[in-house]
Amino acid sequence: MKKSRKPWGGRFSAPTDRQVEEFTSSLPFDRRLYRHDIAGSIAHCRMLERIGVISREEADKIAAGLEGIRRDIEAGLLRFSPELEDIHMAVESALVERIGPAGGKLHSGRSRNDQVALDLRLYLREETARIISLLERLKDAFLDTARSEIDTILPGYTHLQKAQPVLLSHYLLAYWEMLDRDETRFRECLERINVLPLGAAALAGSSLPLDRKYVAQILEFPRISGNSMDAVSDRDFAAEFLFAASLCMMHMSRFCEDLIIWSSGEFSFIEISDAFTTGSSLMPQKKNPDVAELVRGKTGRVYGNLICLLTVLKGLPMSYNRDLQEDKEPVFDTVDTLAGCLGVIGSMLDGIKFDRERMLEEAARGFSTATEIADYLVMKGVPFRTAHGIVGGIVGECVRSGKTLADLRLEDWRRYHSSFGNDVFSRLDAKSSILSKTVEGGTGRKQVKKRIEALERLRSKRRKADR
Amino acid sequence: MKKSRKPWGGRFSAPTDRQVEEFTSSLPFDRRLYRHDIAGSIAHCRMLERIGVISREEADKIAAGLEGIRRDIEAGLLRFSPELEDIHMAVESALVERIGPAGGKLHSGRSRNDQVALDLRLYLREETARIISLLERLKDAFLDTARSEIDTILPGYTHLQKAQPVLLSHYLLAYWEMLDRDETRFRECLERINVLPLGAAALAGSSLPLDRKYVAQILEFPRISGNSMDAVSDRDFAAEFLFAASLCMMHMSRFCEDLIIWSSGEFSFIEISDAFTTGSSLMPQKKNPDVAELVRGKTGRVYGNLICLLTVLKGLPMSYNRDLQEDKEPVFDTVDTLAGCLGVIGSMLDGIKFDRERMLEEAARGFSTATEIADYLVMKGVPFRTAHGIVGGIVGECVRSGKTLADLRLEDWRRYHSSFGNDVFSRLDAKSSILSKTVEGGTGRKQVKKRIEALERLRSKRRKADR
Amino acid sequence: MKKSRKPWGGRFSAPTDRQVEEFTSSLPFDRRLYRHDIAGSIAHCRMLERIGVISREEADKIAAGLEGIRRDIEAGLLRFSPELEDIHMAVESALVERIGPAGGKLHSGRSRNDQVALDLRLYLREETARIISLLERLKDAFLDTARSEIDTILPGYTHLQKAQPVLLSHYLLAYWEMLDRDETRFRECLERINVLPLGAAALAGSSLPLDRKYVAQILEFPRISGNSMDAVSDRDFAAEFLFAASLCMMHMSRFCEDLIIWSSGEFSFIEISDAFTTGSSLMPQKKNPDVAELVRGKTGRVYGNLICLLTVLKGLPMSYNRDLQEDKEPVFDTVDTLAGCLGVIGSMLDGIKFDRERMLEEAARGFSTATEIADYLVMKGVPFRTAHGIVGGIVGECVRSGKTLADLRLEDWRRYHSSFGNDVFSRLDAKSSILSKTVEGGTGRKQVKKRIEALERLRSKRRKADR
Amino acid sequence: MKKSRKPWGGRFSAPTDRQVEEFTSSLPFDRRLYRHDIAGSIAHCRMLERIGVISREEADKIAAGLEGIRRDIEAGLLRFSPELEDIHMAVESALVERIGPAGGKLHSGRSRNDQVALDLRLYLREETARIISLLERLKDAFLDTARSEIDTILPGYTHLQKAQPVLLSHYLLAYWEMLDRDETRFRECLERINVLPLGAAALAGSSLPLDRKYVAQILEFPRISGNSMDAVSDRDFAAEFLFAASLCMMHMSRFCEDLIIWSSGEFSFIEISDAFTTGSSLMPQKKNPDVAELVRGKTGRVYGNLICLLTVLKGLPMSYNRDLQEDKEPVFDTVDTLAGCLGVIGSMLDGIKFDRERMLEEAARGFSTATEIADYLVMKGVPFRTAHGIVGGIVGECVRSGKTLADLRLEDWRRYHSSFGNDVFSRLDAKSSILSKTVEGGTGRKQVKKRIEALERLRSKRRKADR
Repeated sequence: MKKSRKPWGGRFSAPTDRQVEEFTSSLPFDRRLYRHDIAGSIAHCRMLERIGVISREEADKIAAGLEGIRRDIEAGLLRFSPELEDIHMAVESALVERIGPAGGKLHSGRSRNDQVALDLRLYLREETARIISLLERLKDAFLDTARSEIDTILPGYTHLQKAQPVLLSHYLLAYWEMLDRDETRFRECLERINVLPLGAAALAGSSLPLDRKYVAQILEFPRISGNSMDAVSDRDFAAEFLFAASLCMMHMSRFCEDLIIWSSGEFSFIEISDAFTTGSSLMPQKKNPDVAELVRGKTGRVYGNLICLLTVLKGLPMSYNRDLQEDKEPVFDTVDTLAGCLGVIGSMLDGIKFDRERMLEEAARGFSTATEIADYLVMKGVPFRTAHGIVGGIVGECVRSGKTLADLRLEDWRRYHSSFGNDVFSRLDAKSSILSKTVEGGTGRKQVKKRIEALERLRSKRRKADR
Repeated sequence: MKKSRKPWGGRFSAPTDRQVEEFTSSLPFDRRLYRHDIAGSIAHCRMLERIGVISREEADKIAAGLEGIRRDIEAGLLRFSPELEDIHMAVESALVERIGPAGGKLHSGRSRNDQVALDLRLYLREETARIISLLERLKDAFLDTARSEIDTILPGYTHLQKAQPVLLSHYLLAYWEMLDRDETRFRECLERINVLPLGAAALAGSSLPLDRKYVAQILEFPRISGNSMDAVSDRDFAAEFLFAASLCMMHMSRFCEDLIIWSSGEFSFIEISDAFTTGSSLMPQKKNPDVAELVRGKTGRVYGNLICLLTVLKGLPMSYNRDLQEDKEPVFDTVDTLAGCLGVIGSMLDGIKFDRERMLEEAARGFSTATEIADYLVMKGVPFRTAHGIVGGIVGECVRSGKTLADLRLEDWRRYHSSFGNDVFSRLDAKSSILSKTVEGGTGRKQVKKRIEALERLRSKRRKADR
Repeated sequence: MKKSRKPWGGRFSAPTDRQVEEFTSSLPFDRRLYRHDIAGSIAHCRMLERIGVISREEADKIAAGLEGIRRDIEAGLLRFSPELEDIHMAVESALVERIGPAGGKLHSGRSRNDQVALDLRLYLREETARIISLLERLKDAFLDTARSEIDTILPGYTHLQKAQPVLLSHYLLAYWEMLDRDETRFRECLERINVLPLGAAALAGSSLPLDRKYVAQILEFPRISGNSMDAVSDRDFAAEFLFAASLCMMHMSRFCEDLIIWSSGEFSFIEISDAFTTGSSLMPQKKNPDVAELVRGKTGRVYGNLICLLTVLKGLPMSYNRDLQEDKEPVFDTVDTLAGCLGVIGSMLDGIKFDRERMLEEAARGFSTATEIADYLVMKGVPFRTAHGIVGGIVGECVRSGKTLADLRLEDWRRYHSSFGNDVFSRLDAKSSILSKTVEGGTGRKQVKKRIEALERLRSKRRKADR
Repeated sequence: MKKSRKPWGGRFSAPTDRQVEEFTSSLPFDRRLYRHDIAGSIAHCRMLERIGVISREEADKIAAGLEGIRRDIEAGLLRFSPELEDIHMAVESALVERIGPAGGKLHSGRSRNDQVALDLRLYLREETARIISLLERLKDAFLDTARSEIDTILPGYTHLQKAQPVLLSHYLLAYWEMLDRDETRFRECLERINVLPLGAAALAGSSLPLDRKYVAQILEFPRISGNSMDAVSDRDFAAEFLFAASLCMMHMSRFCEDLIIWSSGEFSFIEISDAFTTGSSLMPQKKNPDVAELVRGKTGRVYGNLICLLTVLKGLPMSYNRDLQEDKEPVFDTVDTLAGCLGVIGSMLDGIKFDRERMLEEAARGFSTATEIADYLVMKGVPFRTAHGIVGGIVGECVRSGKTLADLRLEDWRRYHSSFGNDVFSRLDAKSSILSKTVEGGTGRKQVKKRIEALERLRSKRRKADR
């Protein structure tokens, strides 16, 4: 009888089907976790030594063997055979090959269920920290550009219709706010990632006297999981990471949408540097904002990854089920996508040339200071709704007669309402409109400057704290 | 010429198409926000009084008018006409009707863009607090049942295959952990909801000297938004709420899946009370776990709501766009769904009768203590892999010969490995398997009891703090 | 002992919890199906008469009773109490109240499982036909506008960068193609909707000698379902409807995105009529393309509805499960949303004023005929890649020196390549660029005209067939 | 000045950023399209020859060059450098390297926009055909098993509660129905895939006299696209493929859910062969239905892929945008996943051992013939609702007194209703319940047999047609 040769094959009388082996193997993608798997195994091994399940000598041999395997993987010297199922079995089998039966002691008191939960948490802890630092860099890029463009006036839009002039800095700082919320979400997610699941074993805990706190200490986990059944079946932290990434991609997709629109010939507000655009294989004149388009498009894949994991988890019975193997690829793909986008957006931002005159020209158009005139009337005691109606009527007439507000003379204004005086003329241009916005959080130059300085102070404080 | 009669119709020369009126109106659903809209307007009005834009007398009239409108809505005395577009216009128009032109002053320095952001935040602040207290109640229900079932043994499953015996309490506490993470996520989300957007006006802030901190104080917002463009276009907090709800629904769907399986005749682990099951219109014998099935099914609608809002937000140009009107229905539907499910699950749990003998009977089956035997060998110095192989082989032979582990005599055991001694027999039953799990977070009775007590202490501490 | 008073309550000893009654009731939304439910019941009743399970007299009484209930619902005279669970029970209970115990015979050989499947299919058959006719009307609107704008030149974009001039008609016909595919998908979906499930009973079929073909004949179903277990658990047709709707919404979202961009002051390609735009509560000058934005936004809710149903269905065990009750709301909401959008887009299109000069002006800009020049060189024997490089270089120099292609004289051209002759000048303007596109399916005026005529012929043929 | 060295770099003055090159390159995944790209290019080249843009000699050289490249890729002899952007540029650049400037003529009248649309259609045409044939094989597996299990009785479930006995064959044929609808959807999708886009060039068509019908003939496309702008921006066919795959995965996830439940020790209805299960690294006794779990889990990734593409497409302006590059990976991943699952499910089905006695034992339990008794009373003239109530009462009393229906004597029956006679006893067992289901599409043995034979005839007819 041909028997199973798997490490778990004791009770099996037939070998695994080859097609099944390929279908179920996670090695092609989870080999990315080799470093985390080995670090977790070394910590587990040292703990087993401490509680006396293995000797000091065995522990040293195992740890050295694992380090050697890590080095060989990194040097490209170790090839894993596909029938090894997953990175855990692959590493263990290499270990046994190198150090003999002592390697078989490593898995005492451990199951792949808690082991893979540990590996994924170690991986995501590292990657979340990297994402956070990329977010900080990108926030800096927005903040720095906000400082240097403090005098640039931009038409502000709602409904993609000119609404009111704003400072370009103010616009850029809106993204700072979004990215800052993203960062907070990732930091909070990190708290929930940073919990040690090892010791849960298959689902019930172990009858070996495992010292989980010692493992936590070695691997620098501030907390250990409180329930072993939850520990092996929980993927909340991964779903949460995917959601935080989805919102972050969404923010970038909105910025990219603006960049793409602003790059159009009709807007011509910006020029993205040659290094961040590409051409057409057919049309010699084209210079396309491909990077911005790709970031916008990649939002879809991160949303898709989120839905993938949510679907996998829905309605799963307690506790570990093999469906959970499908958690890794969406996470890996999201890490790569998000890190790539955060990096490339920051560099692209540095290379954008804002056409200040063009922006100002458009900011002055389209009656974008009409609200100022309504506010002007309000300050003269006219009820807002009446003021809004009057100014709406003025704009309507101007549109029909092809005039702008600047074309109106004092007598024209007074024809609409007797409260208009000579001071109305100082409310008509974009610059004074912006100057007038003194409300906190608004686009007034003074307010924006104050905000930039506050954020810069925040930044240096954080940096000091990090040192 | 037939002119627009809208409050914003000054510049329009043709009235809105009726089909368009219906298509764009949000009144059928956003009227749910009337209380929050009115509370926000009163706060805004008091602030306008404070900064001198309206007089004390006008402010009193406006506030009294708004209170009257609220009362009339609650008494069912106020019907809104559909051409009023949204709850903001509906309330303002009722106000002007009641108190005359002074009502037209209320909208000074405000836009519907910041007003609707305020309303949604006030609404979600209230509802999130309600969800949190429902979560606390449900956690209590799990904790209390865990205490009363502390001696009930359940077969623990992985892959829906019997794995190892666990305490039913331990199983129930796994859900406590999930719900606790849910609660934390909602609390963190609440932090981001609880920010005052009013004062952002359309997108740029206002040229009126608005006192945002005063408004924040009246409405009890700890923070005000830092950037007006972000303030009117940010819906992160709503998406985050939908995501926290999605994970929470997912957790309940997993519990429901177990209840449904356990209710099957084949498992017969539980009986759900008649009050929480329904019958068949055709088959007289049926008693169906409909409530559990509906909760599991409703997970789909909350996932759908999340995808809805994420799709709406993707690639939107800065700042407010009408697409954002589509934020409310998924949020309302999710609030109703989640609150309904949390309530019903808790009540159902109370009425479940666990069949302790049946569970124990199954816990003893299926070689579910095989891991104990492997651990037993490990403690006798056998390398784990070898031990696993030996026990796997024993199980395989038993399966083929129709025996259980309890059928083996000492000489049978020793045939497999010389380390087996008389003490092996004390490792074979479910109860001792559970007793042996001394590791922290595991299913050992002592550990579980300790955990229950810790969570109970935590609960009383929180309750004291809340008083 | 308080007993259940439900029609299925025979084996129950406790009444349903009130919270559960509310939680599980589908009456608030499935009452929309009353017409279909009654039509199905009448057909079932006539069939029961035919096979002798009920008498002619009873059948007449039942049918008349059901007709009366329908009329009363339509006249607003019938209010359903919420504890009636669903529309099926509500109608049956009203029937028994009206005609006595004979009403209790109607449910012979039927279960709510096959009854609700029937109702939903009858409903979707009707609504899909309506959607198809709305699609035909919208296709007509695009076709008619294409005919009337046959001489309007539009800059064609890729990456939102000017690419090559195209006819506005050609652009509009691209949407005709998309909507035509949508229509085909809905027609194919209709085939799968149009299958009679009644007779499947709960899941196994019936032991009464039901005549399914007779029911199919009365209700005009061309086919009856082939497997009763599939018949009660199949919701493919609903998911398919939601997917066809998703693609259709996606197409409209793309058109709306263009309309929004074209409405911006910077593009100014179109003016949407006042009747299809709305204003701002704060900014008197605003005229916003709200309808287009809402359609774009509503894409999210239809995607969400699709994900909702797919999630509900995933991993459900055979056969009917109560989760399936969650199928109706996403379907109803999608029907309303899609029909609303199709209607409003068509009307809006009629009211759009295209600014032909402005479009032409932009079509001439941005080197959008550069590809013509490359093709010109190709026709003179220059390899395409070389030609592309040459023209790319010319464009680059023009950009740097602030020139357009029209500024170049023959000697300038010949400096770049000796093949340039006087005939190059006739390739530089948008109109001749369009004229040159003689390839089938391309934007050449002759080709587009041919296509319009072909589609018009197709339309009249179809209309004749429909008469 | 460092210039761009890209084939489109004519107008660029700075080279592409390396990070950007990596970020935008699609070569790592679209190299999968090499065969289709080369086939398309050869057809295009032969057409260019036919219309005289290139000579016979050049065409031969190009075609031979392309064939050589294909062979070298397949032999692993050709490595593409990452800065080549995509498979189109990679192949063209290899061609120019091999045959010199003549290679540069190949791209005449073509853009990557129509080229990639062609490649994806050629790829999906091939893969959809493969999926269809896998579906046919899987349908056969269900049909063949249905034939061989024609006498096996299974408890039929609704709400996972025993409802009525059914034939296992009937259950299996329900999946045949689902897979058959899947096949139809893929076939319809194939119609829309099978349209030639080449000739659309960038978006406008070409000014070269391209002969699209000749290309269509070479590549065996029955239709050519009708509108060039639509042709380059349409991805409906890909989304449709992903949706058809989603429904198909959903069907398999439902089957797998049943297999997993049936594999549990409590059900013990089936045993999946060792070759299709795997063990535990910790628990020696485990034999897990991993394959079924993985198929169920992989449903999530296909749903995610669908949402990915739908999100990418939403709100894209006309016509080609770089976002569309994100279409390929979800399609490739779905093809691999779906084909893998279809294959593995079929093989697993073959290896399943159904435990007929165990199924029959459970089919007899749980009052699953109660509906028969109600129908029995109906046939004796009792109104259905009354009959249902009577039988419900009987069941209720039996449950409370621990009896089954078989325990009742005639006098017991008659105590409930006088219509009961001795013939009631023949309605109590599962087998006669099944025999009684004579309705078409129901589970009656005769009906199921008829259906099997009809489907077998259909199959042989189709096979003959395929020959």
